[in-house]
Amino acid sequence: MRFQLFDWLGLEARLAGTDLDRETLDAYFDLSQRLAADQFLPHYKASDTLEPRLEDGQVKVLPAIGTALAEFRDLGLFGASFSEDLGGMGLPYVVTCASYAWFAAANCSSIGYTMLTGANARLIAEFGSPEQVETFALPQIDGRWFGTMCLSEPQAGSGLADLRTRALPDGADRLGNRYRLSGNKMWISGGDQDISDNIVHLVLAKVPQSDGTLPEGTAGISLFIVPKILPDGTRNDIAVAGLNHKMGNRGTSNCLLNFGEGDGATGWMVGEPGQGLRQMFMMMNEARIAVGFGAAALACRSYLLAVDYARERLQGRPLGRRDGPPVAIIEHADVRRMLLAARSYAEGAMGLCLLSAALVDRPDSAEDAALLDLLTPVAKTFASEYGLKANDLAIQVHGGYGYTRDFHVEQLYRDNRLNPIHEGTTGIQAADLLDRKILRDGRGLTVLGTRVSATCEQAARVDALSGFARALASTLADVNRTLTALRALPKERQLDNAAEFQTAFGLVVVAWIWLDQAQTAINMPGTSPETEAMRSGKATSCRYFFECELPQAAPLLAHVASGSDLNSSADPAFF
Amino acid sequence: MRFQLFDWLGLEARLAGTDLDRETLDAYFDLSQRLAADQFLPHYKASDTLEPRLEDGQVKVLPAIGTALAEFRDLGLFGASFSEDLGGMGLPYVVTCASYAWFAAANCSSIGYTMLTGANARLIAEFGSPEQVETFALPQIDGRWFGTMCLSEPQAGSGLADLRTRALPDGADRLGNRYRLSGNKMWISGGDQDISDNIVHLVLAKVPQSDGTLPEGTAGISLFIVPKILPDGTRNDIAVAGLNHKMGNRGTSNCLLNFGEGDGATGWMVGEPGQGLRQMFMMMNEARIAVGFGAAALACRSYLLAVDYARERLQGRPLGRRDGPPVAIIEHADVRRMLLAARSYAEGAMGLCLLSAALVDRPDSAEDAALLDLLTPVAKTFASEYGLKANDLAIQVHGGYGYTRDFHVEQLYRDNRLNPIHEGTTGIQAADLLDRKILRDGRGLTVLGTRVSATCEQAARVDALSGFARALASTLADVNRTLTALRALPKERQLDNAAEFQTAFGLVVVAWIWLDQAQTAINMPGTSPETEAMRSGKATSCRYFFECELPQAAPLLAHVASGSDLNSSADPAFF
Repeated sequence: MRFQLFDWLGLEARLAGTDLDRETLDAYFDLSQRLAADQFLPHYKASDTLEPRLEDGQVKVLPAIGTALAEFRDLGLFGASFSEDLGGMGLPYVVTCASYAWFAAANCSSIGYTMLTGANARLIAEFGSPEQVETFALPQIDGRWFGTMCLSEPQAGSGLADLRTRALPDGADRLGNRYRLSGNKMWISGGDQDISDNIVHLVLAKVPQSDGTLPEGTAGISLFIVPKILPDGTRNDIAVAGLNHKMGNRGTSNCLLNFGEGDGATGWMVGEPGQGLRQMFMMMNEARIAVGFGAAALACRSYLLAVDYARERLQGRPLGRRDGPPVAIIEHADVRRMLLAARSYAEGAMGLCLLSAALVDRPDSAEDAALLDLLTPVAKTFASEYGLKANDLAIQVHGGYGYTRDFHVEQLYRDNRLNPIHEGTTGIQAADLLDRKILRDGRGLTVLGTRVSATCEQAARVDALSGFARALASTLADVNRTLTALRALPKERQLDNAAEFQTAFGLVVVAWIWLDQAQTAINMPGTSPETEAMRSGKATSCRYFFECELPQAAPLLAHVASGSDLNSSADPAFF
Repeated sequence: MRFQLFDWLGLEARLAGTDLDRETLDAYFDLSQRLAADQFLPHYKASDTLEPRLEDGQVKVLPAIGTALAEFRDLGLFGASFSEDLGGMGLPYVVTCASYAWFAAANCSSIGYTMLTGANARLIAEFGSPEQVETFALPQIDGRWFGTMCLSEPQAGSGLADLRTRALPDGADRLGNRYRLSGNKMWISGGDQDISDNIVHLVLAKVPQSDGTLPEGTAGISLFIVPKILPDGTRNDIAVAGLNHKMGNRGTSNCLLNFGEGDGATGWMVGEPGQGLRQMFMMMNEARIAVGFGAAALACRSYLLAVDYARERLQGRPLGRRDGPPVAIIEHADVRRMLLAARSYAEGAMGLCLLSAALVDRPDSAEDAALLDLLTPVAKTFASEYGLKANDLAIQVHGGYGYTRDFHVEQLYRDNRLNPIHEGTTGIQAADLLDRKILRDGRGLTVLGTRVSATCEQAARVDALSGFARALASTLADVNRTLTALRALPKERQLDNAAEFQTAFGLVVVAWIWLDQAQTAINMPGTSPETEAMRSGKATSCRYFFECELPQAAPLLAHVASGSDLNSSADPAFF
């Protein structure tokens, strides 16, 4: 992590001119690691087995989650990424993401509450009135209140155009235009709990037209602040209609909420009418990168557990030897293959997420902003899909033990299985990447092409890396040829194989990251054992990725370029 | 299933000369489907949530499992595959496997008890004395007693050479040479339960040498029958030391058993000393194929659930349309991609397992026996690895709902995750395939090559298939070139990339199966709507597999052929 932040991303140089220095950041990271290990990891199993329950309309979560988050709050960590005038620490986004990764590795469902709260407060801070910020954002930046995002409804998950929650005008007060909301919201993470003083729901809803009908499509969606407890201390008209019982990630309560079973839940509009989706999607880059960090963190922890197990577990003998004591399974080539793969996915995903988060910190550069737009779906998808593969391999390294709940790897796998689904499924990311981020606007790809070429040029001058540089340049050229072929297709056919394109594109991006990191490691000064270990680690992982993963891109791209109509033409009756 | 058995494998023609006919088999299949749906499916969720528990040294399982298995027994189904002189029905193995698949799709952990019992009884019937068969096999063929296989120990899972369970001679009686066993056995499926009158454990153990030490390696391993309740009605010296709590497949109890905490557990040797591993591995082909069937069945059910969901769930609109009502998600190209992939894995795996099981029924043909040896690790691995991918895609089609325990797809996934681990992990199958079944003895590969070439020659004459025939022939040639390159490597390096070889080889085998089935469907007589639907279904799945899956073999084979020493040379300190 520190290699990636300081040596690879050059974080220290970027802090010049601020009052932050390496020492401060190291202290912050040390604190994060310690708190994660001491307060979040110990209840990892318990948060899985003792999941949230609904009692008399109130959701109760494992008390240890509340205790851990109270300590997190007392240390001021809820405000880490917020500016000092909002009561925060003013740390760069990439720094708070790195900290988040340690917590997510220790207990992703407990730390999930802080991620939702931070995203909520940031939205209000960005688009709310000063009174709304004061009333609803500051208590979240303090960590006394938690927040949620209420987008989906039972009939509308990924398809927000079909939202039916309605908001009727109800006058105005110092908090803005007031509305009465009614509707059902599904999949609300942290939708209810008993560990914060209040819950601020940010709700997408539609204001009915003059004839009483809801506007069609997404244009009529607005954003509302709907607190569980109103500023006058009374309960708002929000009922928990049910809890979802999940495969994993169980410590984060996930609710079906009914707004306005009575006269309507009181809410205040944020910003202008009809801007709800745009406002929500301003936060979506960060939410998706956060999902990527969570997935990468779970993958990293799985990898480390698998390495520990493989070093300790004695079984079998090397090929060709039949006697003598059994050896640690890390001696077997096939176990090393699994560990190499898991590391290349986990660390590669973490690198991609850190790079994306670092771009969030440079919103003023048009190039960086375009690259961020391009990389966001890739970071979310690569980390969640390949992170899961790392979890799967970690189970396999553990053998039968990995399949039991006595070890953490099966839970890490179940927890991570959420990540390809929420905040936009892998399929939705693929359409976003290929359509919006590439075919409709090629700026991000141009920036990426320039940076990849620069890395390849440098790497071509290093003997150990020159072959990889050629392979990467050639695969990137494949990508561009594929896009030329796609552009020649009718528009409605261009996304038929978007998922395969996304997989190939992810391999190219992560191959670039591995090549760049291997190069950074070679160029590090010094020959201390730690530096040499870092060099050999990065070189081996890079070699693995170029030998075993990047070559999978070519057949995928060839299929996309062929313009196959298999997916769109298959008769639904066939299935 | 019926297409695969009757049209593709030509089962009816093979029954000529027996007293079995199509009508009898159809009745047997109808019975299996009905019983699976009526008695096994209803407690699928309950067998997951109410897992076996240990009370006063006795394991108690969900009563509904006992009820379902009692009905299975009363219908005589435990004996389906045993010859009539053993009290069985004398059905071909492939037929009983097809029946097993329906039960496994409905509830894999409940039907698991019958699989273990059948394998146990078959081993005793093959190698035991008449008295042993009478006393221990017949009650299992009746279904009154259940059986287990006790191979692993806590310190020795895949490495059986290191077994420490010891068997001390204790005279002889009408049941054979008697021993007193002591040792700990781990991962014993069905190791204890309260739903059969007795449990017959088949235990691998070593007889100490004259100096009291155990012989090293696998040569000293013998096989013993160790019943829970002895023929005189007293309890044997076997204690349940613990239950494993698994990620899935929870209805099958999984125990740590202590044999001989007192004076030693009474057991009788099966056959000759030192033959234990050989005897056990005679059954291993069938056990591995059975695992494949279970995995394929779970994949098939996931696929069917995903199709149902995709037809019912309304969400979003086709590309380029912004208004009108939402459509069923099966209209979206990306959902169809997932369904096409899942079907090609699930049905392809089922085809491969059925083909393998059909080979078990022809032990007299040396060609078929060689092909069976070759295909067994492929069937086990392809079904469990790609079957799991089908389960994963089924979750993804369901979106957030698929991640909840209200739907079956997440449980099907958890249940199937066992299959790449037990009865030899994927890594062990890969070594078996490449080393034992190919490099050391090329007969199976020669048979496969001949049969694949025959299919390709026929398919080359069909316009719709000729391109696929060329692709398959070319990839098979790649396989052979890869093997030539491997043979040039030092012996201890040849298996470095066995796992990648196995993946590529599985793609080739399943592509062959799809091509052959597509051809069979084209050649079916008639133009009824069902026949046309079968034709289009097989053609589309075949096209999917050749467009999207088989091309992944080339880069894998190229890597294997390169002789990369990445896995074996990586410094363990690197990880």
